[in-house]
Amino acid sequence: MLSTSASLDNLIAQFSRLPGIGRKTAQRLALHVLKLSMDDVRLMSQALIDVKENVRTCSICCNITEDDPCSVCTSPKRDRRIICVVEESTDVFAIEKTNDFKGLYHVLGGRLSPLEGIGPDDLRIPELLDRTADGAEEVILAMNPHVEGEATTLYLSKLLKPLGVRVTRIARGLPVGTDLEFADNATISRALEGRIAV
Amino acid sequence: MLSTSASLDNLIAQFSRLPGIGRKTAQRLALHVLKLSMDDVRLMSQALIDVKENVRTCSICCNITEDDPCSVCTSPKRDRRIICVVEESTDVFAIEKTNDFKGLYHVLGGRLSPLEGIGPDDLRIPELLDRTADGAEEVILAMNPHVEGEATTLYLSKLLKPLGVRVTRIARGLPVGTDLEFADNATISRALEGRIAV
Repeated sequence: MLSTSASLDNLIAQFSRLPGIGRKTAQRLALHVLKLSMDDVRLMSQALIDVKENVRTCSICCNITEDDPCSVCTSPKRDRRIICVVEESTDVFAIEKTNDFKGLYHVLGGRLSPLEGIGPDDLRIPELLDRTADGAEEVILAMNPHVEGEATTLYLSKLLKPLGVRVTRIARGLPVGTDLEFADNATISRALEGRIAV
Repeated sequence: MLSTSASLDNLIAQFSRLPGIGRKTAQRLALHVLKLSMDDVRLMSQALIDVKENVRTCSICCNITEDDPCSVCTSPKRDRRIICVVEESTDVFAIEKTNDFKGLYHVLGGRLSPLEGIGPDDLRIPELLDRTADGAEEVILAMNPHVEGEATTLYLSKLLKPLGVRVTRIARGLPVGTDLEFADNATISRALEGRIAV
């Protein structure tokens, strides 16, 4: 970039560091910022600082929160006997959007991945076992449907079952709205395997 | 978004306002910001403010700059007899990257577009005429190759020619690296029309 402003070059460099933002997009975003009002830019600038200053991790479920414990863990409307285990906070957002789950969450902070050097000690597994032993009746394993997610599911289920809790996993099958014709083999195999009585 | 943090929701909303950034991308960017160090986030936050505080428009060429007049207009290495007219500052960056142009620029601030209600009064045309009358020998019209850019080129050339200046336009033709086979009709027509002696 040979812009005639060091501040603009700097902002472009800052935007470029964000994931999925290339040089051209960063340039477009920076030029857009130039067109915004000073008030709007101040709001954006402050939002960045606020998120770092206010957001922490819930000491119970390890989800993103501003108050510790988080609103899900403290809500009286939640069923404390069911714990849904997910990899990341984004998975909690995805499940919350459905409004279909009324239990508690446990964010592992990743999945077992020997290739990336992530072992059981890097995940929040002891905390999950403590919570499970503390009165849970069902633990739902909601890992992502990859090889590593499956391995994590298997590993956790072996640790959880001896605690006398019901261990379930979310279903693998055809996503709503697609055609059988276009589904991949692995998905169809799982859909057949997981068939239920009508 | 049903995240459990108002600050995070706010940052996602701020990112969503940027052009080409949808809800999902904004969420991904905001979660990435959470993982950055406080120092890095402060740098990004400050870069936004800096760009608004430091960047202004050059009083001569209307390009983006921090010092007025800009480094191009004040450079002794530049040929002051040639003025290249472009629509936006981004066009200046694009031409500067080639390192092939050693004259001055004039940023119009857009192009004639009756459909969008942009007329001659909305562009920096009087400033261009003043500069041209003030000793320029050649004015290169480097509008974008759209209908509106062509109309702007035609309009400006009619205003500039009576000033006794050489008026040129950048060539339309096949872009380097493409095949004649895949070029559109209009481009091939222009390439034929603009043929030069070998």
